Amino acid sequence: MASLSASSLSLFPLSSSSWSLTKPQLNFSIATTNRIKFTIPTKPRNHVGTHVIRSAVSIDKEILLSESPHTLLRESDGDGNAIRARFQQMIMKAQAIVCEAIEEVDGVGKFKEDAWTRPGGGGGISRVLQDGAVWEKAGVNISVVYGMMPPEAYRAAKPAATDLNPGPVPFFAAGISSVLHPRNPFAPTLHFNYRYFETDAPKDIPGAPRQWWFGGGTDLTPAYIFEEDVRHFHSIQKRACDKFDPTFYPRFKKWCDDYFYIKHRGERRGLGGIFFDDLNDYDQEMLLSFATECANSVVPAYIPIMEKRKDMPYTERHKAWQQLRRGRYVEFNLVYDRGTTFGLKTGGRIESILVSLPLTARWEYDHKPEEGSEEWKLLDACINPKEWI
Amino acid sequence: MASLSASSLSLFPLSSSSWSLTKPQLNFSIATTNRIKFTIPTKPRNHVGTHVIRSAVSIDKEILLSESPHTLLRESDGDGNAIRARFQQMIMKAQAIVCEAIEEVDGVGKFKEDAWTRPGGGGGISRVLQDGAVWEKAGVNISVVYGMMPPEAYRAAKPAATDLNPGPVPFFAAGISSVLHPRNPFAPTLHFNYRYFETDAPKDIPGAPRQWWFGGGTDLTPAYIFEEDVRHFHSIQKRACDKFDPTFYPRFKKWCDDYFYIKHRGERRGLGGIFFDDLNDYDQEMLLSFATECANSVVPAYIPIMEKRKDMPYTERHKAWQQLRRGRYVEFNLVYDRGTTFGLKTGGRIESILVSLPLTARWEYDHKPEEGSEEWKLLDACINPKEWI
Repeated sequence: MASLSASSLSLFPLSSSSWSLTKPQLNFSIATTNRIKFTIPTKPRNHVGTHVIRSAVSIDKEILLSESPHTLLRESDGDGNAIRARFQQMIMKAQAIVCEAIEEVDGVGKFKEDAWTRPGGGGGISRVLQDGAVWEKAGVNISVVYGMMPPEAYRAAKPAATDLNPGPVPFFAAGISSVLHPRNPFAPTLHFNYRYFETDAPKDIPGAPRQWWFGGGTDLTPAYIFEEDVRHFHSIQKRACDKFDPTFYPRFKKWCDDYFYIKHRGERRGLGGIFFDDLNDYDQEMLLSFATECANSVVPAYIPIMEKRKDMPYTERHKAWQQLRRGRYVEFNLVYDRGTTFGLKTGGRIESILVSLPLTARWEYDHKPEEGSEEWKLLDACINPKEWI
Repeated sequence: MASLSASSLSLFPLSSSSWSLTKPQLNFSIATTNRIKFTIPTKPRNHVGTHVIRSAVSIDKEILLSESPHTLLRESDGDGNAIRARFQQMIMKAQAIVCEAIEEVDGVGKFKEDAWTRPGGGGGISRVLQDGAVWEKAGVNISVVYGMMPPEAYRAAKPAATDLNPGPVPFFAAGISSVLHPRNPFAPTLHFNYRYFETDAPKDIPGAPRQWWFGGGTDLTPAYIFEEDVRHFHSIQKRACDKFDPTFYPRFKKWCDDYFYIKHRGERRGLGGIFFDDLNDYDQEMLLSFATECANSVVPAYIPIMEKRKDMPYTERHKAWQQLRRGRYVEFNLVYDRGTTFGLKTGGRIESILVSLPLTARWEYDHKPEEGSEEWKLLDACINPKEWI
């Protein structure tokens, strides 16, 4: 999944089902080539009769642009009716809307934009607001990747076809990813991320289909619980889900609690939201609408909470606790988040990947909040995920 | 290497040669058992004709003690002449000496001690000073582990005997590990770590030998370069090495530069020092003396630098740069350090493992120091390691 390094933030948190083979990779070499390539050595290392796959991954070096392009798609993908073009349009619009809402509430900070392409096609647009009045750090990134998918990933994406054995398959991925870290400890961090994958049909297997799937989610990470805020946030997620399928919210809420799990702490990173991946067992148009609805729900889910919390008075103790929870955010993103860890290993644009990290974080030895305190209540909700609505 | 989770800080940064098989593990389950166990399922997952090893790792839960024990060894290891007993004595003494020196220079902060044992034998003593006058966070930990080594690790530790195929082999490991993060941005962070491993002779292979090896190192991570400090630090390392073998310093200096490499940044964590692992091709007594000499060199290598830098006036800019470099420290420890990442995955004492993280850290988007500035010089030396003496 070299390609995923081109993602920004944790744009493509690889699902274990689709990409399990890529995880045991031990070594990566980064080379400047015409496009993303996967090579699997013909002689895997042999330990005690078992094999370990070692993949060499290469990715184009990004080329910074002086201004944002209107599209990151290859010219051949210019058809405005294709899903990939419409998905790109959707994430570009979502980026603009979210950034505008953030700047308006912040009042002081302005987004700085960096855009890049890659020689093989694709690229990204990072927008980062740092040291604002309301947000310490807010990143909203989009990116488009053209790459080659290793054969086993294609197989895994379609488990029924396990007898097929294609060569590497070209794929397309596009996504928006954002982490918004406010200054006020009573104002929550928000993360969201919506992405679309598409493969070509493998040329060497007649009749083998093109694959596609959607992934994404929106989740809330406060340092203190205001039940009305968490209920509001989850209600908006549920409303977006319910427009499409009543099973979505309960399924994706649980998936979110399971994914954002800091295993060594036994804690979730925050209070969840929704998360889904590999979604392809619905009508493609319906899922594009669903992803659009989710992205459009970011502002109504988050901004009203920020309006209420951004100016609340707080003490050093509140700030220190927020900083400790930011430390947990760093732990999750650097140790577990599949998009981040893979991106780091495969030579993506590091600054875009790591813009998800907070401006500041704190680690105290053996810190334990007093039982029953507000800090303890947050921790308890991270350890024992709750139903908020 | 469940055992290594019992380590504190990055006590046992597994060398790839000894433990390569443990790295591709995908899933860990932590159970309460009588001792550390490794189980390799009989049916590895099969992807495209290759196998991925999945190991279940279990480790005893630690039992906190109300006061520090005189020994962490099993009673049967009580013989004061055995290397394991003498190594434990050495690290206990080193812990006492370093903590005393730190408290004396700090003047305000005091070490808080936590000690624990495990039902199967072994345990640890963590000493942490937090929010001192000179050090923001200083951790000096020792630990002793009794565990079962997976057969492939035993084989790898003795490459010549690749035709042997023993069952799991009991092993012993002991070490001291420390990270000292000062407050003043002109005062450097220090890390050191010395450890000793020993296996039993595999019972099921007549004539197969007991294995043992030493590992460790001491390295310096300043935010600003004072050449005289770095030269002093490296000179003390070289002096310790030269007493034993003139090849040690150049070999272990390079090993250190190679190990503390933040691959996604293309930077080393700091300005190096010495690092070695799997050292067993010398006389065992000689290597015990060498490890002792290295541990005894910590105070003379570090304290004179701290005396000079602890009270230097600094500005917010200096502090912010130190905080950015602390962010890099976090990145290295959470993403690359083998002791830390493995410890996190295998259920060790999290607070002891993560005491290596700084009290505070910072991530700015796309920060680039001005060329020629003091910050740039530090970064340049992290990108292009120098010979300091």
